[in-house]
Amino acid sequence: MSFQNPVFIPGPTNIPESLRKACDMPTIDHRSPLFGQILHPAREGVRKILKSASAEVFIFPATGTGGWETALTNTLSAGDKVLAARNGMFSHRWIDMCQRHGLQVEIVETPWGQGLPADRYADILAADTAHQIKAVLATHNETATGVKSDIAAVRRALDDAGHPAMLFVDGVSSIGSMDFRFDEWGVDIAVTGSQKGFMLPAGLAIVGFSEKAMAATQTGTLPRTFFDVHDMAKGYANNAYPYTPAVGLLNGLNQSCTMLLAEGLENVFARHRRIAQGVRAAVEAWGLPLCAAHPSLYSDTVSAIRTPEGFNATDIVTHAAEKYGVAYGVGLGEVAGKVFRIGHLGSLTDVMALSGIATAEMCMADLGLDIKLGSGVAAAQDFYRGNPAIACKDAA
Amino acid sequence: MSFQNPVFIPGPTNIPESLRKACDMPTIDHRSPLFGQILHPAREGVRKILKSASAEVFIFPATGTGGWETALTNTLSAGDKVLAARNGMFSHRWIDMCQRHGLQVEIVETPWGQGLPADRYADILAADTAHQIKAVLATHNETATGVKSDIAAVRRALDDAGHPAMLFVDGVSSIGSMDFRFDEWGVDIAVTGSQKGFMLPAGLAIVGFSEKAMAATQTGTLPRTFFDVHDMAKGYANNAYPYTPAVGLLNGLNQSCTMLLAEGLENVFARHRRIAQGVRAAVEAWGLPLCAAHPSLYSDTVSAIRTPEGFNATDIVTHAAEKYGVAYGVGLGEVAGKVFRIGHLGSLTDVMALSGIATAEMCMADLGLDIKLGSGVAAAQDFYRGNPAIACKDAA
Amino acid sequence: MSFQNPVFIPGPTNIPESLRKACDMPTIDHRSPLFGQILHPAREGVRKILKSASAEVFIFPATGTGGWETALTNTLSAGDKVLAARNGMFSHRWIDMCQRHGLQVEIVETPWGQGLPADRYADILAADTAHQIKAVLATHNETATGVKSDIAAVRRALDDAGHPAMLFVDGVSSIGSMDFRFDEWGVDIAVTGSQKGFMLPAGLAIVGFSEKAMAATQTGTLPRTFFDVHDMAKGYANNAYPYTPAVGLLNGLNQSCTMLLAEGLENVFARHRRIAQGVRAAVEAWGLPLCAAHPSLYSDTVSAIRTPEGFNATDIVTHAAEKYGVAYGVGLGEVAGKVFRIGHLGSLTDVMALSGIATAEMCMADLGLDIKLGSGVAAAQDFYRGNPAIACKDAA
Amino acid sequence: MSFQNPVFIPGPTNIPESLRKACDMPTIDHRSPLFGQILHPAREGVRKILKSASAEVFIFPATGTGGWETALTNTLSAGDKVLAARNGMFSHRWIDMCQRHGLQVEIVETPWGQGLPADRYADILAADTAHQIKAVLATHNETATGVKSDIAAVRRALDDAGHPAMLFVDGVSSIGSMDFRFDEWGVDIAVTGSQKGFMLPAGLAIVGFSEKAMAATQTGTLPRTFFDVHDMAKGYANNAYPYTPAVGLLNGLNQSCTMLLAEGLENVFARHRRIAQGVRAAVEAWGLPLCAAHPSLYSDTVSAIRTPEGFNATDIVTHAAEKYGVAYGVGLGEVAGKVFRIGHLGSLTDVMALSGIATAEMCMADLGLDIKLGSGVAAAQDFYRGNPAIACKDAA
Repeated sequence: MSFQNPVFIPGPTNIPESLRKACDMPTIDHRSPLFGQILHPAREGVRKILKSASAEVFIFPATGTGGWETALTNTLSAGDKVLAARNGMFSHRWIDMCQRHGLQVEIVETPWGQGLPADRYADILAADTAHQIKAVLATHNETATGVKSDIAAVRRALDDAGHPAMLFVDGVSSIGSMDFRFDEWGVDIAVTGSQKGFMLPAGLAIVGFSEKAMAATQTGTLPRTFFDVHDMAKGYANNAYPYTPAVGLLNGLNQSCTMLLAEGLENVFARHRRIAQGVRAAVEAWGLPLCAAHPSLYSDTVSAIRTPEGFNATDIVTHAAEKYGVAYGVGLGEVAGKVFRIGHLGSLTDVMALSGIATAEMCMADLGLDIKLGSGVAAAQDFYRGNPAIACKDAA
Repeated sequence: MSFQNPVFIPGPTNIPESLRKACDMPTIDHRSPLFGQILHPAREGVRKILKSASAEVFIFPATGTGGWETALTNTLSAGDKVLAARNGMFSHRWIDMCQRHGLQVEIVETPWGQGLPADRYADILAADTAHQIKAVLATHNETATGVKSDIAAVRRALDDAGHPAMLFVDGVSSIGSMDFRFDEWGVDIAVTGSQKGFMLPAGLAIVGFSEKAMAATQTGTLPRTFFDVHDMAKGYANNAYPYTPAVGLLNGLNQSCTMLLAEGLENVFARHRRIAQGVRAAVEAWGLPLCAAHPSLYSDTVSAIRTPEGFNATDIVTHAAEKYGVAYGVGLGEVAGKVFRIGHLGSLTDVMALSGIATAEMCMADLGLDIKLGSGVAAAQDFYRGNPAIACKDAA
Repeated sequence: MSFQNPVFIPGPTNIPESLRKACDMPTIDHRSPLFGQILHPAREGVRKILKSASAEVFIFPATGTGGWETALTNTLSAGDKVLAARNGMFSHRWIDMCQRHGLQVEIVETPWGQGLPADRYADILAADTAHQIKAVLATHNETATGVKSDIAAVRRALDDAGHPAMLFVDGVSSIGSMDFRFDEWGVDIAVTGSQKGFMLPAGLAIVGFSEKAMAATQTGTLPRTFFDVHDMAKGYANNAYPYTPAVGLLNGLNQSCTMLLAEGLENVFARHRRIAQGVRAAVEAWGLPLCAAHPSLYSDTVSAIRTPEGFNATDIVTHAAEKYGVAYGVGLGEVAGKVFRIGHLGSLTDVMALSGIATAEMCMADLGLDIKLGSGVAAAQDFYRGNPAIACKDAA
Repeated sequence: MSFQNPVFIPGPTNIPESLRKACDMPTIDHRSPLFGQILHPAREGVRKILKSASAEVFIFPATGTGGWETALTNTLSAGDKVLAARNGMFSHRWIDMCQRHGLQVEIVETPWGQGLPADRYADILAADTAHQIKAVLATHNETATGVKSDIAAVRRALDDAGHPAMLFVDGVSSIGSMDFRFDEWGVDIAVTGSQKGFMLPAGLAIVGFSEKAMAATQTGTLPRTFFDVHDMAKGYANNAYPYTPAVGLLNGLNQSCTMLLAEGLENVFARHRRIAQGVRAAVEAWGLPLCAAHPSLYSDTVSAIRTPEGFNATDIVTHAAEKYGVAYGVGLGEVAGKVFRIGHLGSLTDVMALSGIATAEMCMADLGLDIKLGSGVAAAQDFYRGNPAIACKDAA
């Protein structure tokens, strides 16, 4: 198995050397004070990265999907109504989970490539004068389409309607990479995982709960044990977990937070934007459209690139893996075969990005697309040269 | 943080060098065929370790607790009745989970230190002519008390009663260390985790489903998404997961199975028994009783040692950590303060065990117990000398 | 410290994941049979990579420079005459070493960028009818100029003259990457190190001695202890060293040989040639000449690229490190400031090479050279597309 | 290959987790400023550990033997006279090296088990009124016999005689573990390696030169290249080496110095003494004599234990490796078969030491020696209990 080339999937990301070492840890007693010295700073670090002064942070040995389930099962009861837009595979899956757990979902069908329709949310919330909607679901960054949504606008929709529903945000592919403001946006539950902005292996569901969300856990009656936040909180109070924690990953998370906060969150976001802009310059040079319908929607962590009608975009991904040993993301759901995705989040440099762009060019040319070799690379080089990294040591 | 001394907690175990390296893996595309080359052999390896010809093996990024939840939520419906004995903290917790998910539990209260009361099970099952009991829960090895139960006897109870209830076995601290026979014992669901017999970090819930358990998933209506085995099975068919898998841990699991099977399961069991016998020889030399009420119940993975009346056994654990940097397990629940536990599973040699015995002696002497220094060590030495390891390279 | 980008220095190379893990080894007893299980296969592997049936292989905890010293001090005596050409920094340094140890060096000054002048050697050897010349020194691949020399021709020069001098070859940057034939070329001592074709960290001097060279150790009187091959041979016979060996590196060497031989030496050479040809296509597209004077001299492990008159080539290297975090090699000695070097040996893919080419383009453009962005990349892409790797997993 | 048990050889030591990670480093450009950020602090750290204000520290990719050769070849000329005592295998080997390099050695034969005979040195130096003796060799800690010598007394012998000879000290198995005072003792060259007190893998020769020794390099004419300190010094001035450095090991050395200095040198020495005293208590309980003739000579890094007449001590070492997977040191040279050695330096806790003591007991009993199981363990436990470690995290 070769590990020479970087990966360009939209997570898990390339893992920095220092984080691999932080995760690769001998066994310690997870019921000892030593463990608390890992756990508490990790939770505090996450809280800062969420830009929250007081969110309760819970970290489960699971994935972002487990984080979604944590949000729903701790705060809601069967039959409760939630509002959600479906504009990509990940919002679709969260909706599907709601339905499996007996929630009623008011679904706002939204074209894939568009952001969350805050105006539609506003109308629906205004109309819900009985406040039957208990929670609004919002996918901050649709990993499937490379679309970033305006969470502040969703908050405004709630506020304008004077609606008390909770706001649950899926920030799996945004938190730690793109600007996220738990407190300012009035987020009630934020969900993420270890394998995106935190640049770690998959294996941690990371959630933040507002005071209001914590209060809702008193009334929510959906069954839960593994994802129960009260058990977790009780454990934390004793430097422990209700079951065996993933100590190495938590140690990595602690170290990841330290790295990101040392770099400065705004620098982290600028770094992601910069790498993304180079990739987008290449895409533009190729003459291919992004799936995201408007520049304001462009994600800084993943670009979903539309290929010409009649061409199977998935072939690029298969071909790149087989011929060049490089991994991109396929299109999912509605855009399967129509887009391929270049992940550009986490531990990545412009130099690495150029190799991903160059390889995509070779693949497209190999498969008969009318792509001029070097064209995207040149556009990205031009951008990167003129917009140098602050320091080449970012996110080492 | 010092990692010099081995740990003597009953899991996570000391991790063999080769497994640490197998887990510490750069990112690969978890939707690529490469991933299948890790996933499928890992599942097949687990199946062999379960001693099953046909169990469906599912591996979740979670822990054994998640495995319990997988068992319950995939096969049962709210209001379903299950039979379970409570003879320690882990059987207690599984019962608690059942109740949280709306199951009715017929609880057989059993003294802590005793094994599962198969005769009581037999009576209850015989009496349940309406077959209201859908599942029987059985904790193979109570980690809290160091008690091994007779699963074959539970199966006989079911068979003698001609009862169709499923048999769910918690093998978290037995599978991969002590004899476990999925097919022969007619187990329907076996639950374990990565951090015990497999000698890996925590982070994987590992479950095996019989054909009957798979059939029950068609009728079970408890809500589930993260732990849904059908989503998982669908993913596996495409070399994938329904969400992001913990690739490094799966790679470690694959390697762990390879190691255990290369050593030979019976050798693995004999190795654990041998280490355990040395520890038990030491305990006997100290004149302290085990929590397990009878030699037939002695666990080969953990010994819970009763300290004299009036002595707080937890002090040993705290003192060992603070003064000597060595981790033992505390007593839990009913036996809190009454026992301390020496874990002796996974990657451990007689030489390492001797250091754990020697340290326990120092601690007990420090805390005023009437323990002769070197007495337990001498008893264990005597045993180990006369019963040498087959090869000193076991479970490297 | 960031480790995200590959390095493009002409060694140490990028280290494959599996070799990093092989080197990172806990302490074992280096006087135990276990050590022999590492040492002997490693020596045997090296012998095969040298293409020798019977060379005695010695491995010192040192570097290639120590290998040179091993060659000289074990076989020669003060005042002995050796023949050597100076066509680059490394041949220069070996000559300098000869002089420091009291040898008389007949130096054939050769333009940097040219290969070894076998015809001049032929003349000199023919004229040396008294056979005063005891050894002929030959640098197989001049790392400073990216020039490969014809060792077979040097052998012919010796044979044609019927001259008994030993042939000492510096294969530091060729062995394990480019074709090397110890037996066929009648090499008496071959010298290399761990950090080039073997893709390991620096720290091992690796030498092969022919039977004739071994015989010469009986008469050579230059003082030596650390590099004494007899002490070493005596140690090897007991699975040991005359002092403490670098066990982890030896374990890595063993693993490296296994990898290279599994790939097949001819495949290894073809892989290096292929990567090199892509780099050379880029250089040609840039309109820059190589330092190597003729295509027959082009090294497949490093390219030294001449920059235009008046431009300081070293600036490229400094700029690349500072702005882009990428390492190239500077020009040394006579060609300092006139060339910069791209190392393309060891663990490298076309995808990685493209990032090195792309970055060099950005640097040259940044520094005002008339280089069209994407031009070299396109030429290399074109080559790599048409000449795909046999398998993307080579030299993982 | 099993790495479960600690090693008890007198170096290489058990390697702390953090140092393994520091050594396991991706490739960086060893001619870049980054390298200087590793090199210079490492040299400065060594200087502090030598307790010197101004020693020039040189670090070669070699071993302690290379350090000896560095000392001799840089400062002396063929025919020069040196004074040395032979009281063990390592002093013997250094003397042998002197002779191979054409030095005249005035050898003071000293019983193995005795320390350096400072009084004999005094006589000889006083008699050498012509000051023909250029250097006095002193092995601070004879690893073969577990004997520590009084270097201050050797300095006094020189001073009392008003003799200008340089003082070369082999501190391979003392520096970083036992008190060493470069400046106070007027040491001119100190030699050590990476694999003892620094707790790293073998692969670095570490030497400190006084101003007087540096001056002697101007006149010493022994041939040298690889070990030339002037080439090295020139390299250092440019953040570089005259050849390729072992970057990972240097990074580890830097980290090791940081750890040792953070712990405090006196604490480091006390820690070694404490572990050693426990081992010696065990040896006394066994009724076996140490090779070291007097308590004042007892080494705190290794104990050489005499076994009864007629018994082959080497059998213990072989048996321990084969049956228990534990490594001790054999007797060397004059004491081969008469002693076995327990190394107790570097990364070791009392808990680990107890496992080494317990295993030695089992081996001796297995081989028929009249050793009471647990007797040595009890003596060591008693000592360790009463003399607790300052913090159990020392030398993590």
